[in-house]
Amino acid sequence: MSSYGRSYSSESYAPSAPSQPESYRQQERDRGASGSARPQPSGYGVHQNQQYQQHPPAYGQGQSSSSSGYSGFPPGTHPDVIRSFEMVDVDRSGYIDEKELQRALSSGYQRFNLRTIRLLMFLFKNPHDALRIGPKEFAALWSCLGQWRAIYDRYDRDRSGKIDLFELRDALYGLGYAVPPSVLQILMSKYDDGSGRKIELGFDSFVECGLILKGLTEKFKEKDKRYVGQATFNYDEFMSTVLPFLVAYD
Amino acid sequence: MSSYGRSYSSESYAPSAPSQPESYRQQERDRGASGSARPQPSGYGVHQNQQYQQHPPAYGQGQSSSSSGYSGFPPGTHPDVIRSFEMVDVDRSGYIDEKELQRALSSGYQRFNLRTIRLLMFLFKNPHDALRIGPKEFAALWSCLGQWRAIYDRYDRDRSGKIDLFELRDALYGLGYAVPPSVLQILMSKYDDGSGRKIELGFDSFVECGLILKGLTEKFKEKDKRYVGQATFNYDEFMSTVLPFLVAYD
Repeated sequence: MSSYGRSYSSESYAPSAPSQPESYRQQERDRGASGSARPQPSGYGVHQNQQYQQHPPAYGQGQSSSSSGYSGFPPGTHPDVIRSFEMVDVDRSGYIDEKELQRALSSGYQRFNLRTIRLLMFLFKNPHDALRIGPKEFAALWSCLGQWRAIYDRYDRDRSGKIDLFELRDALYGLGYAVPPSVLQILMSKYDDGSGRKIELGFDSFVECGLILKGLTEKFKEKDKRYVGQATFNYDEFMSTVLPFLVAYD
Repeated sequence: MSSYGRSYSSESYAPSAPSQPESYRQQERDRGASGSARPQPSGYGVHQNQQYQQHPPAYGQGQSSSSSGYSGFPPGTHPDVIRSFEMVDVDRSGYIDEKELQRALSSGYQRFNLRTIRLLMFLFKNPHDALRIGPKEFAALWSCLGQWRAIYDRYDRDRSGKIDLFELRDALYGLGYAVPPSVLQILMSKYDDGSGRKIELGFDSFVECGLILKGLTEKFKEKDKRYVGQATFNYDEFMSTVLPFLVAYD
């Protein structure tokens, strides 16, 4: 197994939303629940001069890691997270595979499509076992999903239970990524069922889009040191940047 | 459906091998069947000053397109190609979906995994129907696979029926792409079954790797006009270059 995936820190896949400036929050209140267009900054990055601030994890703040026999969970892991893990780890191996992860998340969130599960497995995989994750990875993954869930609920402004192109754009903008609709359209075509209906994302697809867009944008930013919206890659760098995202889909 | 995928010409996914210089062919003869290391040129491109020359299609040279009722096949399409299409298009709609394509190719080549099928469907899709392909696309796809098959057989030097990392490197080198083993390793980790055995590619995975590597390299080359091994992308270009490859995996 190539060690390449390990260079991605699981941490970096949380949405890591920057705090909103007060003026932006006021604008949002003024706009109410509408997803109407507003002037977008040019370039992909907004808030670049602000301090980034991690969202608090959705679960597991200051709670004991229960009386479980699993020692691998970080201190403070919420008992629900441990229970979800235990419930699916039927052979008590301390590791779960993609099908088990799918079952565990379905209990805590909703049904996840296997493609998103595989992307999550890839991003959160432990260095010793490419095909399974342990308690530590599971807790990180669960916390990350809690953060994405909060974003999802916040930007589903029409309370449709789905995120459309403009809500996705706004959610990403809120996270500090000004991704043009033309780029989002390419990614959202992945979810086109051919019916001609407007494409909307359930939570699992929203997470998939978010992870891909955040991941690629961060990679671009690493090469765009002066923050001018341009990045120069040599061939090896380009291929080594892009291929892991393709490898993730197994 | 976004029209993005349409900007990729199906033609460009044939391997389009450049002719080998005589000196290179001589080296190959000298090396015999070994896949031993030889000095690689720096950068990703070799043969850049040569005329590119299309391989002849593996099928369908100068033959009539049979007496089939399908009018959509290009003149000269081999009857076998038409028969394969007809065999799976049971409702005679003139279009086949991914499962039918999988069956059609399995008759002509071998069993194809669904992931490669989806990549092929994406690359060869017709502009009017994102989920099915017609006779024209099928004929182009079949011809493209014939060209990849010839490469595969040529570079499977130990006649194992599988392509390993070094054979893949040599095959790509023969096609004019000097892809470093470190990059190939990332891609080949996709096929790691976790057993610890050496990773080797069957024909379908070889085609998948080839299409991805060729496609990404060509996109890089478009931005590397002076052929110096460096390309500068603005953010939109970068995302619009990379995302279609991710969208392809449905």
